[in-house]
Amino acid sequence: MKTILRGRTKEIKIDSQGVVVLIGEKINPTGRKKLAAALQEGNLDYVRDLAGSQLASGADILDVNVGVPGLDDVAMLPRVVQMLAEGFDVPLCLDTPNPRALESAIKVAPGKVLVNSVNGEEKSLSTILPIVKDYGAAVIGLVMDDSGIPADAEARVAVAGKIIERAARIGIPVEDIVIDPLVLTAGADSNAARITLQTIEIVRREFGVNINIGASNVSFGLPERDTVNQAFLALAIQAGATCAITDPVKYALFIRATDMLLGRDSFAGRYIKYFKSHPKADA
Amino acid sequence: MKTILRGRTKEIKIDSQGVVVLIGEKINPTGRKKLAAALQEGNLDYVRDLAGSQLASGADILDVNVGVPGLDDVAMLPRVVQMLAEGFDVPLCLDTPNPRALESAIKVAPGKVLVNSVNGEEKSLSTILPIVKDYGAAVIGLVMDDSGIPADAEARVAVAGKIIERAARIGIPVEDIVIDPLVLTAGADSNAARITLQTIEIVRREFGVNINIGASNVSFGLPERDTVNQAFLALAIQAGATCAITDPVKYALFIRATDMLLGRDSFAGRYIKYFKSHPKADA
Repeated sequence: MKTILRGRTKEIKIDSQGVVVLIGEKINPTGRKKLAAALQEGNLDYVRDLAGSQLASGADILDVNVGVPGLDDVAMLPRVVQMLAEGFDVPLCLDTPNPRALESAIKVAPGKVLVNSVNGEEKSLSTILPIVKDYGAAVIGLVMDDSGIPADAEARVAVAGKIIERAARIGIPVEDIVIDPLVLTAGADSNAARITLQTIEIVRREFGVNINIGASNVSFGLPERDTVNQAFLALAIQAGATCAITDPVKYALFIRATDMLLGRDSFAGRYIKYFKSHPKADA
Repeated sequence: MKTILRGRTKEIKIDSQGVVVLIGEKINPTGRKKLAAALQEGNLDYVRDLAGSQLASGADILDVNVGVPGLDDVAMLPRVVQMLAEGFDVPLCLDTPNPRALESAIKVAPGKVLVNSVNGEEKSLSTILPIVKDYGAAVIGLVMDDSGIPADAEARVAVAGKIIERAARIGIPVEDIVIDPLVLTAGADSNAARITLQTIEIVRREFGVNINIGASNVSFGLPERDTVNQAFLALAIQAGATCAITDPVKYALFIRATDMLLGRDSFAGRYIKYFKSHPKADA
């Protein structure tokens, strides 16, 4: 199954049989004080730098989140989107829980965006999906609902099914839904990653859709987080994830190595090419 | 299934449902000039150092290989084994293709050793398995035979079956066979790792035996070999490998992270404990 996204002209395909697509996660002020301050000052130079460095490191898509407490996201999200659309030809991933901020930004975004995100809560389904439909976007579906994040894989799969069905009902094609199985902190729950891996396998088998994973939550509170995140990325990709929202500067080389080992890189050409243009990426 | 090994008193269990057992690979002069020179001079201090550093870094078992061209391995292998048996309480993995060197060493080794290795060649089966049986050892079975390393998983599984059957015929229990699916260089063959992963899955399903992997061949000739080796370790462990012959100094933390993510480490206690006693292991 192929989820197609577009920037001004550039097309990116998330292909359930293909290599992993990287969504650069760094334009998100949560835990990034310098970015939060820049957004509050309305200074977009730092945002532009974050975009450029992520693209140079192999990001295929850029996540855009301007969630700073007190900041008017309905005004700021479209402003950042416009700046990015002018400076870079890359599909964007509009990351906001606020339907009004989403709508104001999606109007000015070129091409075909990925909306991050809808979930199984009634309020989310009824406000986000119509915007996705109206603007011909694709959307990440998080497997949580009004009762929170289900503890077991079967219940998460049920939420995925509900999102896909509700989207289909208003005419969003299944290939425009990318399911995110969510992952909790492994340090707090010994089965956290395993349940996520199971969810990936079942969702892939039952619905055939593309799967996105975030690879930072899992290591929260643990030492040597990069080591844990890398191990998790390999496991999730083997289980069937084809899209990862993560830090390309840190993880693009490792993800390319995983793609290569899974037989998606003829004579390791893609891995070697990446290494040659980013020799310090892994250091 | 449990493969039990013993040093003087210390018992190590390779458990197909348990955490990965680490065989320290560094007492092997192939590509290690300093060790080759030390063995040629009959100076075992450096071998002792390699044993100590690997155990301190989390090795559960030590591989012992004295293969230097021109060196009398029938005399040297038992000498190294005796030194290790006196200095350390750890199960040994006797790594030689020479049945005479194996027999001279297995006689002086305490506990229950792992023999590395037998393969599907008639000459190997008929000379190695009787020694394994006579000394009550366990053995690594490499899935290659007189025609070389099979190109596809099914043929490798057939060699595994042949080794298990021939061992059973002379009374070696199936739990004392650890199958090594072999892995070729990913840079030379885009499907190398994938075939190995498939072999692991099928051998586990059909025979239930423990699986050993070597994690260095796969990255031969590629840049950033550690990155490739780590990705491969995660994939192989997820596929069902429960034993790895590798460099514990480099990879023990990553392997513990993988075990943790697969739900084998309550509240990440084992991972955190390892990190606290080896804070620089991953650097």
